[in-house]
Amino acid sequence: MPLVRQVIADLRETVAALHGELTRYGLVMWTAGNVSARVPGEDLMVIKPSGVAYDQLTADTIVVTDLHGELVEGDLSPSSDTAAHGYVYRHMPEVGGVVHTHSAYATAWAARGEPIPCVLTMMADEFGGEVPVGPFALIGDDSIGRGIVETLRDSRSPAVLMRNHGPFTIGSDARAAVKAAVMVEDVARTVHIAHQLGSPTGIGQDDIDSLYVRYRTVYGQA
Amino acid sequence: MPLVRQVIADLRETVAALHGELTRYGLVMWTAGNVSARVPGEDLMVIKPSGVAYDQLTADTIVVTDLHGELVEGDLSPSSDTAAHGYVYRHMPEVGGVVHTHSAYATAWAARGEPIPCVLTMMADEFGGEVPVGPFALIGDDSIGRGIVETLRDSRSPAVLMRNHGPFTIGSDARAAVKAAVMVEDVARTVHIAHQLGSPTGIGQDDIDSLYVRYRTVYGQA
Amino acid sequence: MPLVRQVIADLRETVAALHGELTRYGLVMWTAGNVSARVPGEDLMVIKPSGVAYDQLTADTIVVTDLHGELVEGDLSPSSDTAAHGYVYRHMPEVGGVVHTHSAYATAWAARGEPIPCVLTMMADEFGGEVPVGPFALIGDDSIGRGIVETLRDSRSPAVLMRNHGPFTIGSDARAAVKAAVMVEDVARTVHIAHQLGSPTGIGQDDIDSLYVRYRTVYGQA
Amino acid sequence: MPLVRQVIADLRETVAALHGELTRYGLVMWTAGNVSARVPGEDLMVIKPSGVAYDQLTADTIVVTDLHGELVEGDLSPSSDTAAHGYVYRHMPEVGGVVHTHSAYATAWAARGEPIPCVLTMMADEFGGEVPVGPFALIGDDSIGRGIVETLRDSRSPAVLMRNHGPFTIGSDARAAVKAAVMVEDVARTVHIAHQLGSPTGIGQDDIDSLYVRYRTVYGQA
Repeated sequence: MPLVRQVIADLRETVAALHGELTRYGLVMWTAGNVSARVPGEDLMVIKPSGVAYDQLTADTIVVTDLHGELVEGDLSPSSDTAAHGYVYRHMPEVGGVVHTHSAYATAWAARGEPIPCVLTMMADEFGGEVPVGPFALIGDDSIGRGIVETLRDSRSPAVLMRNHGPFTIGSDARAAVKAAVMVEDVARTVHIAHQLGSPTGIGQDDIDSLYVRYRTVYGQA
Repeated sequence: MPLVRQVIADLRETVAALHGELTRYGLVMWTAGNVSARVPGEDLMVIKPSGVAYDQLTADTIVVTDLHGELVEGDLSPSSDTAAHGYVYRHMPEVGGVVHTHSAYATAWAARGEPIPCVLTMMADEFGGEVPVGPFALIGDDSIGRGIVETLRDSRSPAVLMRNHGPFTIGSDARAAVKAAVMVEDVARTVHIAHQLGSPTGIGQDDIDSLYVRYRTVYGQA
Repeated sequence: MPLVRQVIADLRETVAALHGELTRYGLVMWTAGNVSARVPGEDLMVIKPSGVAYDQLTADTIVVTDLHGELVEGDLSPSSDTAAHGYVYRHMPEVGGVVHTHSAYATAWAARGEPIPCVLTMMADEFGGEVPVGPFALIGDDSIGRGIVETLRDSRSPAVLMRNHGPFTIGSDARAAVKAAVMVEDVARTVHIAHQLGSPTGIGQDDIDSLYVRYRTVYGQA
Repeated sequence: MPLVRQVIADLRETVAALHGELTRYGLVMWTAGNVSARVPGEDLMVIKPSGVAYDQLTADTIVVTDLHGELVEGDLSPSSDTAAHGYVYRHMPEVGGVVHTHSAYATAWAARGEPIPCVLTMMADEFGGEVPVGPFALIGDDSIGRGIVETLRDSRSPAVLMRNHGPFTIGSDARAAVKAAVMVEDVARTVHIAHQLGSPTGIGQDDIDSLYVRYRTVYGQA
């Protein structure tokens, strides 16, 4: 049990700090975006409290909930998106981190309900193809979480554009999910700009597959 | 009376600091935007001085005026928009803060005289529908204030796009009005981007209503 | 003479610091933009050295030249735009500061050779009408300076968009010219965005005149 | 040999610091961009390690490889683009620095496979004409490096837009290559914006030549 306590304390630090990447890259305004992390081996997650300014997020303010969003530890109410995060953790055991933003370009694709086509080598690397669109869903029950899981379960993409809402991203841990949130906005923006003056050239499926596989095995440090 | 003095001193601090949110989110250039707060229970407000750089705004530079814009306390001339702020406070007793900017995307909708359609769940949350357009009005008499009040009185939106001019926002206090100024630029930008490559899908009125009501009751800390 | 020395020393400080406004508002990349100030009552100006990074601009690096661009004081070569600045000072005695940038939106209007139409109250305030286009001119003789002066001499606007090149702005002092450089990019951007989804409504000439006159007499501190 | 050791130590410092210019100008997201420098007189280069955050890049983390990308010194794996950098150094002896980014506007032109037309005097200065497009090439062999070299060998431009991928830039040293990376994004953005509302006016070839030659001989410090 002391070990779990340390893991939770570390995750609260990590998740508090990772919100700084959302503001650094301009993905969030005011308080409208959140990061969570699964507590490995426990039916618990750590997540941003609701409506708290990013400047004031410290490890102490991050809350711990069960995977149905019930508060387990912390003084503040959890993010209003907690149910969606929990649904993802309950149904995708490989996921260790979830991020939600309303970053402008990704949300614009979501507002039109259009997937982002895979026309950049970086998209092939990171997303393995297009970034898919999830259903329109109201907040307040399982429908957002179910929409995320049903869209991502059979996709290589760690990002889904929820209709009229914005992107949700997943990763093996919270940092990977934050990276996906940064990257989905970057490709949403670049592909948007490319489309403004004409049509980008597509990339063949074989080339997409080759880039996707290579990136998984060669990029980064061992 | 000593109590009012303390309240005014605190509001000057708060209002000086809140201008930092306008620069942080890129809503203002040079000196062209201002925040005010009503002094609760008094016919007074605190507001930015005219033409002073944001770097130099301290509590000391913030001025106190009556609700017709006459200087009551402070060494500097009040914002040239003071009459409009005062008109709002005189006619909307529930308003405790007013903000004006020329943020680019909101002002672009204002220049075309087009309301921002409600195509994002975040807009349903924050604005309860479209962001409305107010009339063209010259500075120098009550016409800007009247345009703001007549447009917002029957709207859920805390933001109005004054034609050829820019957004004015209101809130229960100055911080809420600043949040609305940040949010109106964010949705103005995202909906603009969505329209550049096609047409966003609308959100049904029932869903807008449901999101709007829920946000008011569930979001944030109790 | 000691008095002139102090004036020059102060202007070098001021001009060095004002370049920080160009970087703050994203108007310049690398070393491509410059500020100068006339030394009042002397046929001298202070100006940025050529090709020096903004981080390294201190009062010591700012150079003094005559109004034909010949170095009078300083260890570095003056900006390659010095001749244009000097031409403006020689032919417009009311001008105390000149700024040149390649800020993106203003330069885009310049690349199409289109004036920015006056569709914002802020443009009426600051520019008194449209922002005019100056001729295409090569660097290396008087043609840039002449193009600036011939365009601005009969205009209310403190900014000219030199074709295929970028904006030059003037002011009663260097700070006013920097303000005009910030504002011309802001209105270039906002009006661009407004045009992307339709046509902004115009402002009548009487209203433009009224706003322009009022701004000159009422805005700011006495 | 001690001299080479000092040169390498200095280049590691320089290259670590130059990555700060990529983040300052918003050219890179997360870890997706890299700078290298040739070690003069040796068949060696220094380059960013793969997948390391820019905040964590210090001289110690920068690695040394031969010009085929084999690690010679350092604890980390070199950038996954090392082979492309090495190919350029092997085939263009005048090149002392190489930079790769996925900056948004330049990458958007690359996604459409369109060169950036020379419609700005700054482009004539820096690029001597249009910015050319290189072939689509997969990572993992010599094809990216070959595409860069074949495109740039007969061009004045220090930047090539690799199809569906992004810009690569070269320079006499790493700082010059970074400047070209900053400038190519700036002109990609400005020319994009110019095209959004119409067609920029072209610049005649004689004027382009004249500007290009003059910039090489007059700009900057001797």
